Order: sequence, then C-alpha cells, then structure tokens
Amino acid sequence: MDARHAILFEPVVIGPKTLPNRFYQVPHASGFGSVRPRTQAAFRAIKAEGGWGGVCVEYAPIAADADETPAVGADIWDEADARALGLTAEAIHAHGALAGLELYHGGATSANGSSRAARVAPTQAVSERRWASLAKEMTADDIARLQRDWVRAARHAADNGFDIVYVYGAHGYLLTQFWSTVLNRRTDGYGGSLANRGRFWLETLEAVRAEIGGQCAVATRIPLHGDSGVPGAETLPGIEIDDMLALVGMADDLVDLWDVTVGSWPEDSGTSRYYPEGNQRRWTSRVREATAKPIVAVGRYTNPDLMAQVISSGEADLIGSARQAIADPFLPRKVAEGRLDEIRECTGSNICILREETFNHVGCVQNATAGEEFRRGWHPEKFPPAASAERPVLIVGAGPAGMECAVVLAKRGFGAVHLVEAEAEIGGRLRWTRRLPTLGDWGRITDWRSVQLAKLPGVEVITGRRLRAADVLEYGAELVVIATGSAWRGDGTQPGYPGPMPGTGPSLPHVLTPEQVCAGQRPPGPRVVVYDTDGYYVGPGVAELLAADGHEVTVVTTFAVLSPVSDETLEGDMLRAHLHRAGIRAVHATTITEIKPGGDGGGPWTVAGHDRHGDPWSAGCDGVVLVTQQASDDALYRELTGDPEALAAAGIAAVYRIGDAVAPRLLSEAVFDGHRLAREIDSPDPATPLPYRRERTELG
Amino acid sequence: MDARHAILFEPVVIGPKTLPNRFYQVPHASGFGSVRPRTQAAFRAIKAEGGWGGVCVEYAPIAADADETPAVGADIWDEADARALGLTAEAIHAHGALAGLELYHGGATSANGSSRAARVAPTQAVSERRWASLAKEMTADDIARLQRDWVRAARHAADNGFDIVYVYGAHGYLLTQFWSTVLNRRTDGYGGSLANRGRFWLETLEAVRAEIGGQCAVATRIPLHGDSGVPGAETLPGIEIDDMLALVGMADDLVDLWDVTVGSWPEDSGTSRYYPEGNQRRWTSRVREATAKPIVAVGRYTNPDLMAQVISSGEADLIGSARQAIADPFLPRKVAEGRLDEIRECTGSNICILREETFNHVGCVQNATAGEEFRRGWHPEKFPPAASAERPVLIVGAGPAGMECAVVLAKRGFGAVHLVEAEAEIGGRLRWTRRLPTLGDWGRITDWRSVQLAKLPGVEVITGRRLRAADVLEYGAELVVIATGSAWRGDGTQPGYPGPMPGTGPSLPHVLTPEQVCAGQRPPGPRVVVYDTDGYYVGPGVAELLAADGHEVTVVTTFAVLSPVSDETLEGDMLRAHLHRAGIRAVHATTITEIKPGGDGGGPWTVAGHDRHGDPWSAGCDGVVLVTQQASDDALYRELTGDPEALAAAGIAAVYRIGDAVAPRLLSEAVFDGHRLAREIDSPDPATPLPYRRERTELG
Repeated sequence: MDARHAILFEPVVIGPKTLPNRFYQVPHASGFGSVRPRTQAAFRAIKAEGGWGGVCVEYAPIAADADETPAVGADIWDEADARALGLTAEAIHAHGALAGLELYHGGATSANGSSRAARVAPTQAVSERRWASLAKEMTADDIARLQRDWVRAARHAADNGFDIVYVYGAHGYLLTQFWSTVLNRRTDGYGGSLANRGRFWLETLEAVRAEIGGQCAVATRIPLHGDSGVPGAETLPGIEIDDMLALVGMADDLVDLWDVTVGSWPEDSGTSRYYPEGNQRRWTSRVREATAKPIVAVGRYTNPDLMAQVISSGEADLIGSARQAIADPFLPRKVAEGRLDEIRECTGSNICILREETFNHVGCVQNATAGEEFRRGWHPEKFPPAASAERPVLIVGAGPAGMECAVVLAKRGFGAVHLVEAEAEIGGRLRWTRRLPTLGDWGRITDWRSVQLAKLPGVEVITGRRLRAADVLEYGAELVVIATGSAWRGDGTQPGYPGPMPGTGPSLPHVLTPEQVCAGQRPPGPRVVVYDTDGYYVGPGVAELLAADGHEVTVVTTFAVLSPVSDETLEGDMLRAHLHRAGIRAVHATTITEIKPGGDGGGPWTVAGHDRHGDPWSAGCDGVVLVTQQASDDALYRELTGDPEALAAAGIAAVYRIGDAVAPRLLSEAVFDGHRLAREIDSPDPATPLPYRRERTELG
Repeated sequence: MDARHAILFEPVVIGPKTLPNRFYQVPHASGFGSVRPRTQAAFRAIKAEGGWGGVCVEYAPIAADADETPAVGADIWDEADARALGLTAEAIHAHGALAGLELYHGGATSANGSSRAARVAPTQAVSERRWASLAKEMTADDIARLQRDWVRAARHAADNGFDIVYVYGAHGYLLTQFWSTVLNRRTDGYGGSLANRGRFWLETLEAVRAEIGGQCAVATRIPLHGDSGVPGAETLPGIEIDDMLALVGMADDLVDLWDVTVGSWPEDSGTSRYYPEGNQRRWTSRVREATAKPIVAVGRYTNPDLMAQVISSGEADLIGSARQAIADPFLPRKVAEGRLDEIRECTGSNICILREETFNHVGCVQNATAGEEFRRGWHPEKFPPAASAERPVLIVGAGPAGMECAVVLAKRGFGAVHLVEAEAEIGGRLRWTRRLPTLGDWGRITDWRSVQLAKLPGVEVITGRRLRAADVLEYGAELVVIATGSAWRGDGTQPGYPGPMPGTGPSLPHVLTPEQVCAGQRPPGPRVVVYDTDGYYVGPGVAELLAADGHEVTVVTTFAVLSPVSDETLEGDMLRAHLHRAGIRAVHATTITEIKPGGDGGGPWTVAGHDRHGDPWSAGCDGVVLVTQQASDDALYRELTGDPEALAAAGIAAVYRIGDAVAPRLLSEAVFDGHRLAREIDSPDPATPLPYRRERTELG
C-alpha cells in the first residue's frame, strides 16, 4: 500500500460500533429491496468482501404509506420483512464489515400506488403533485403514528443484525419536507421556527435512539443545500446550508454518524457530464463547523489520493460511495494492495440508476457483474478457468463488447485471445463518444480495459486491421467472436419510416451522420438541423459540438422533450438547460420525412415533415445531421455463418456475435453481452444466455 | 332470468373442453403475475365464482427474452413458475370454470431490462426503439428456440391445470410483428408472402397443438385490423382485416378458439371517452366469414341485452370481457338471477390499466374490492355484519367516497346511515365531471350507488342540506364520517408557487375555476386560456366545453404534453388529437405566474410567466380558467375534531374523514377510501388502514 493511503484504513468509532476502515458504501437503490433477499445479500456482501468497512442497503420504507411501487425499496413494514433483510446483514458481517439500514419515509414523494394509503405531507397546499393528486396534511396523530413506525422498524432492524440504523432525511423526503421553509407551512408546533421545523426530525431521532441506541449506531442523512447552482438541476426548496447546520447542532447529541449530501437526488448523484469529482466538498466540508461526530460525505470519488486528502483535511471521517462501489466493489482492497491500475473507475453516467429505476435491477457500464452476483453467480474478481481455454480465440472488433470479452476470456485462462480492431485505436463507438462535449469520463470504459488487456498475457491486441471473412477463415482461431458493432445509418431510416428518406444519399456534403461529424466533417454552412429520433446522448452531443464550432444548431426531435432517456439517468433537465445556454434551439414532437433543395428563407435546403398533430412542418438550413437510427454491422457474421463448410474446413468450431453487432443498445448492455459470452463459453449453447437463479414467492 | 338472456348461459365446446356458459374473461393484466400467486388466484377465482365460464390469467412471458420488468406478467419460464400459476387454475376450477393462460412473447416490445437478453424482432431496421436501442433480427435458430420455449411453456401450463392455452398474437406482439407487412422485411421463408409471414405463427400453433392438443383447448388471439380510424390512436402497421382473415383460414385446423381483438392495446381497450360500447363489432363480426370455430370477441360490453344480441347474430360464440369483469365479477350471476339493476357497469375510464401498469396492482373505480380479494380479504358481494351496526351514522357529503361508504355500511347491517349532501343532487365532483364532453359514462359511478342507496333499507339520503358543525353535533349520530370532498382553488396556487397568483381574486369575472365553468359561468370574451397544472381530465374537459361554446381556447400546461396522466389510461394521444381537431391550441412546458391587465394585442388581460427554460412568456386573452390545484374541504372535520368535549357531550364516539376531504386524488382512490373505512369500521383505529396480507419471498 502507498503510505499516503494509509489514513483510509484507520478504524472509526460510531456510537457503540467500530467501522474497520473509512470506506463506506452509503445507502443506494438496487431494485432488490426485501423481495429479493438473496440477490440483495450477495450484491452487498461483495462490497464487504472487497473491503468496504460499512455497507448499507437501500431506502427501507417503514410502513405502507411509504410505498414506492413499482420502484422496489427494502420495505420493512413488519418482522418478516426484517428477517428477509437480515440475510444481507449476515452476509455483510461474514466479511467483517458493518451493515446499515436506511429507515425511510418519502412523505409526499411516496407513491402509495400499491398500498393505496393517502400520501402524507406537512402541508397539503405545497405537497408534491402526483397523478393529479395531492397529499394529506399530517395530523398530530399521523406524526405520532409515523414515529411509532420508525421505532418499530428500528427495533426490527436491530434484532435482525443491522449495526447502523438511519433516520433518513435526505433528497427531499419527509423529514426534509418538515424542515423546508417552503414545504412546511404549518402553524402548529411542527412548523415555523427552527425548533418547530426540526421537531419531527429530533423527536424521531430521540425515539429511535431510546429504542436501539445502546445496540446500534444511529445515523441520519441530511441534504445540506437545496441548490448547487447547476442550471436545470432540480432544487430542494427551502433548504439552506446555514439553516441545516443549525439542525446538525440541535440534533448532534442524538446522532452517531452524520451522512451528508447536497440537494436533490439528481444533484447528489450528479453525473460526470455536469458535476466534477468532489463537487459537493464546498458544502460538505462545512459540516465540521457544527459537529465533532463522524461525518460521511459523498463526491463521486474515484481517486484514492483525493479520498485521502478529504480525510486528511478533517472535513470528513468516511469516504461515502454508491456508484464507485458498484463500479468496483474491490476498490478498498486494490488500494490496500497498491493495485491502483486495476481500479475500475466509475464513469458517472448513471446507467446504474437507469437500470435500477427503470428495470428494478441495478447494472453498471464498468462492472458487468454488478447485480449478477446471486442470480448468475458472477464475482467481479474471480474467473473460473474455462474448459475450452486451450482453444485459440479471435475477437473481431475492440469496442466495449469485444474488449470486455477479451479481458474475461483471458482471466478465465485462455492463452491465445486475439482482439483485432479495424481502426487505429480501440474503443469502438467510445472512440468518438468520449470526444463529445461533457462525455470525457465515459472513456474510462476503454481506459480500464486497455490497461488490463496490456497486462493480461493471454491477449494480443491488433489495431488497424480490418478482417474480411477470408481473413477470419485463415486466422487459425477455433473460436471466433464477432464484435463489429453498429453504425449510424445515413439514410434517415427512423421509426415508422423504414425506407431511405428522400433527399438522403451516401455522400452528400449537407447530410451527415454523427460519426462523420465527430470525424471532423462539417455541414457546408452555419445553419444546421440535428434530427434526433434516438433520444439519448448522441444528438445533444453532436449539437453541442457543432454549436461550439460556431454553427446555429436546431435539434428537431420526435420526442416531447429532448433526450428523454437522459431523464432516466437524472440528467434530462440539466442537459436541456445546458443546450439552451449554448444557444441550441429545440423543436419537439416533430418528424422530418424529407430533405429537399430550396429554402423557406432559411438556407439552401429544407427539412420537411410534420408536427405532433400531423400538420406540415418545415425549416430551412445549410445541412442536416441524422441521428435517426443505428444498424448492426453484422455482414461479417452473416457471411461466416452462412458457409458452415468453410468454417469446418478452417477448423473453426463456433462463431459467436456480441454487442451492437447483435443489436444496437446501451453501452452497459454491450459490455454485459461480451462479459456473458466469456463467462458462458463452455455452456452447451453459448449464444443463448443460461437461465439464471430467480427468487421465488412462497406458495403458502 | 329474463328469457332473452338464456342464450348467454349455453355451454360451448372448445376442442377437448366445454365452457359452462358464454361469459369469458379474456386475458388481461393485473400486476400480480406469477410472483403474487395467491393474490392472482383470489383475483381470478372471484370471477369464476361470479359466473364467468372461462377465466384467463394475464400475459405469460414464455422466456427470459420476453421479460417485461418493471411491468409484472405471469412469467412461465420454468416449471416452478407454472406451479405458482397452477394455484390460479385450481382456484378457478373450484367454481366450475375453465382456466386459460396466454403464452406470450412481445418480441421487440419486450423490454428485457431485468433479464438483459437482447430484444428480438423479425427485422431489426423496423423494430421498436426503446432506450435508444433496437432489437436483434431473429435468426433461424432464434425462431426454433422460441418455438421450443412455447412448447415447453404449454406443457407446463397443461401439467398445472390450465384448460385453455394461448398462442398469443394480439396487440402487436411477436406473432403480429411477423405477420405485419411493415414490421417483417425478411427475405427468408418467414417473410414476404402470406404463407411466409404466417409461417412462424402456424408452426408455433402446430408445435403447441402436437404437445398438448388432446389435453387442452388451443386458442390464439389476433388483432383484426391495425387502425380503426380514431384520430391519435396508435396503429398496428401492416395489419389489414382481409389479410388477417386469410390467416384465420390458414390456421383454422390448428385452433379451438379464436380470440379476436382490434388494433393496438389503446384501441382494444378503448375508453368510453372515444369508443362506444361494441365499437369493435364492425370488424369482429367478419371473422365468421373465415371460421366455424368458436369465436370470442370483446367490446366493452356492459349491457346483457347487447351481449345476447351479439351471440344471437352468430358473429361470436362467447362474450369476452376484461374491464366489465373487473367492475363486476358477478355480472353473469346477476344476469342469471335477473338482478340487472345490481350490475356495476364499467365506466371505461381505464383506471384499472393505470393502476396495474403504473403500480403493479389493479384497481377499479366501480369495484373497490378488485385486487383486494387476497390481501384484504374483501369480497365484492359479501359484507360481514359489523359489530357496531347498531350505532347511528352520519355521513356528510355524497360524493364518490361518501356514497360508497354509505352503501358498504348499509350492507354490513348498519340500520341508520344518513347520507347528507349540501347540493341538490348526489355525486360530488361527478355532478359536473359527468357533464364534461366525453365523460358521460363516468356518471355510472353515481348511478349504481344511487340505485343501491335507494334499495338499502338502512340508508337515508338527504340532499340540499349543508351541515355546519353545530348541526352535526345535534344530529344524533354516534359515528360521523366527513366526506366533504375538495374544491378547485381559484387563487392560482400551483406546484412551486404556493401563494395566490397575482391577478387572481375571489370574484373576478375573467378568472374562473372549473366548477364555475361547469356551472355555466363563461369568461367575458372569446379568447380563453385554460391553465392546466393538474395533468388529467379536468383541463381538457373544460377546454372542450368552452370550445364547443364558441370560445377560442388555448391550454397552457406546465407539462411537456397535454394531460400526461391520460397516457397512463391509454388515452393521451387520442385526447390530444381530439382537442386539436376541436381547434384548441396547446402551449407546453410553460408556467403562468401572473394575470395582469393590458394585452399583448390579444385581449384585455395578459397571462405572463415563463417557458421551459425560464425565459419570459406571455399571451393576451379575455379570461382564464385555473385548473391548477384542488384543496381538501376539511373545515368541518377540523372544527369537529378540534372540540373533543363537544363531541363527547353530543354522544359522538368518533369522527372519520374519507375521500378528497383527506387528500384530492383519483376517483378510484376516493371510492376505495370510503369502502375501506366501512370495511374496517370495527378495527381499533379505523382511521388508519389495517395491515394487509403480503406474499413473501422464500428465504432459501
């Protein structure tokens, strides 16, 4: 271990418990909750095994009126829930770490759609609107009832092995709603003055501490500041830092661990596009003014040097991490063993959040094993030797899927894996994606694999060589993996309009693909329409690139908002504000079906189509970038598999296909696909994923 | 029974099985899937008990690449899944009905977010786009693999008690994708000619029939027509009726039951706003041209006379129902017993779909017990006598919650329930809602309760009497239920802007609430802005009312689309097309913060605020309707509960509050709230919902 990192491995006392080191996986969602208890346990245990001294589960709704269905939280409504969650505490303990549980009530943000309970809030008139409904204004009885629920849940958590019990207030949930000068308009003892707005929080802490204080550490999580100033970022109304430090002072005797965050969830989990590493420090560093108790702070930290500096400065006692602990559960061990170049750094793309929020199953673009520990039995650092490891393997294409597949095959003992890339550089679509404005950190996907590929003796990486079918047949490989990716179609094919769009063609200077723009081509004039039917990062990225180059850019999109997929990574509003500030115009819910010469006064070309109602729409321009659709580059795969005799003659036992060459998709899924093939290369039919273990409902 | 309905009770032979009558609950989602097997069993069994001769479960994904997470389907990936679903077959059989299972693959529409399998489609280039991703174009191996999956699932279904096994093709799922001339661009034996496009479907039917044909009836479900002509309705591209009737002819020998639908899911489950009862008949009646086999057709039928007519005409053999069977599981029995006035008619509001899609838990605006059979033990027709039935009850307010509460209390044996309404008519907000354009059928909520209230001896309904607190104290009731509802605020309070909006006031002729407009008030000039921050039916309804009256209406909404909640009831696109055709303009993602005199040339008043980027926005008008926010009318409740001594002196043991007086919310939830209080009136704390039974995951 590097001496400068030793400080990270000091134990930290929190109330009646001692954390073995300063690495702390803060509460974060996974989609597993208490309904997939063994999946949850395996997912958290791997972090304890990897050296995180404290490991928390996600938000744990304490009662039926904190129901978040269809999102999946770690419901702890009763003793049976707590027993299910106890499996996780036990699994964390097996590796010497402490287990934390985030007892939670969302108040007006809880959906209560499944439970059908009324949503609750300090004040109805300013409560969150959902499904055209408002919340119930809490009565004194409601306040007392929820505090009893919190105490009951704390008792169940303590009895089932949890060491750290949260009274969770961050991200604008119920406790913060009471604290907010905007969301709390009460005129009773729970509204108005600092003491009144803090009363619900402090009473709850007191009650929980009275119940389990001798047995467990009591933590609370607070949002320090409602608005960190990033345009478009959702704010927490009525939350200011000086005010919140006053709460820290008021509650300090009741708290063993202060877990501090900034702002709304999209701020706290700010992506690398809009928030630098350690962005939160300017606020979190101030908490020491108000308390001498241990503090845990997050900051999307991936760099151990910076982590050590944060601790040395005294501003925090623990390095809090959610996303980095997903990307590399073994970061602490790697730091301890000086294996810094093996750390998979989080890209800050928030694919983890898209996956757990949209699909109830966390995933990671860097760590394909995240969430797969129980159901597929995958370990991020252990790779069982393959039965077929003697076979020489040729992987065609060093994009995300190909790189990942090569790494995993080599770790499984394959001694001759050739990764052959047509371009001069590996990375596939990341070659140009990482050069788009704001997307630089996504290059970490390539960088980590590049370093590993160089270190693994079984792999040879060959760039600048485009293999044809004949080349593959002659290569000498027994197993062939086609990872040739996908390309943006230049013909304007889009949903509902399968044929080439009139006015497109293979080499028109005024009709470009994203790859062409990233390769340096520019439309022949200032006025550019970027037509986006894709809905994620490519259209906005190209638009920003062109705007930075001095073009007048209009993004025309078929969606009602720009880049709806970015809403699922918590970036949508920021992305739209960012583009607006860059002077990029947006036209929504509009379809382009033709590019034709002659202008509506706006340029030599006209893009024409229809608006959301089917009424005609058109605009003039100097050029168009078509971000309409990708196509799998599967020609090589088809040619090879179309001639089984040639394969047999060449001694090729199997040809597989992975990543975008199968179907253009999210980066995380392309990486997963390459990983999966390598993990299952010995199965009877490696092209088809093996069934995975699923948790079952008791049949009663 | 009325003789004209006798035809509905004839048995029908389908392959090796016989349905006891012609009432058939077609496959429809519930949110219970195979992960809540006892909830599912109880939900379906109640329909068998109520007389439906055939009862189906929802869509059953046959494999991991038909994964629909976070939506919950009846996954039948393996034998253990089938055993869980077998509980439902058994429960249906206990009441003498046949059990059906819809073996399903969504192809490119399956999300596969949890399983992480590639989505599959006949043709990648025209496959559905989701999360900026396209599907894998199926290889011959993929086709064979999915057919094996279908056969395996059929075997498991048969072995676990199902009588009817579907090869499910409707709504644009995988089989329809192969059949579509637009979505199937294959050049192999599975694309091109009728025979080729039908090959996948027919081969699958053959294989399933070979496996379980002697044991089970084989059904298939088809979409007859891709576009029924309702503006804005999603179409199924490349599906035409003559073509589809050719498929019926080609496959007729392989099928025991033809289950026929029209178009996309929003068409098939068309709401009462845009589709009349029996709308599908003009297409479904043509199926007889192509087959003599039994046919089941849906049509949101609620009227037994029309059902009998459909059967008598010979066009169908079974009355298919999803929504009506939710609204009244006992419809067949009520028809059989001539209790026609007890049938709860479906309103066609699709709240069932919002609830099961958004919350994974079906619910119904007419039948508060729907989905609550297992977890709360509620039966739609059985009401256990209450221990406190001797106590006189006063319910203040005859809106949805109050009416429902009165009905249930009376059915539980309460002998003196007074339902007192301030207005001249019962119904609460439905009084004016049902008079908005397109919302007439929602009045069935009032109508059914009105009929029951008149029949129940224990209830007295008193209208036109507004009770003050003193009146309640003097009333002579021991239990008081406050159901005073909510009202639209006229002060422009809206999310993020709690105070009164500048320019509003209590009696300004140019600033109106929805209730005022529905009561006949009109803005003093033609140009009206309807400002909608509610996002459901009120803003569009008021806009349409005013437009029909000759006003020039602009709806300004804070949302990116008009009425986003209507997307969850499958109505959004139709609603927006409908309003556009009515000449109503829409301004999206815009916030109004002030109404001020003087125009931008467009009228004597200006509404001003900001657009989606915070840039200033304004427009002139003659008047504004503020559909911004409701407020619970809880003054009476607060006054009564604020004086416990007065209550004690008056002999009032408890004061409860239900419906919108607690929190303004969806109609279904207000009805549920009234029902719940009446069901739990004897519990230790009736104001707080009792815990309900939850199904648990095996801890392994």
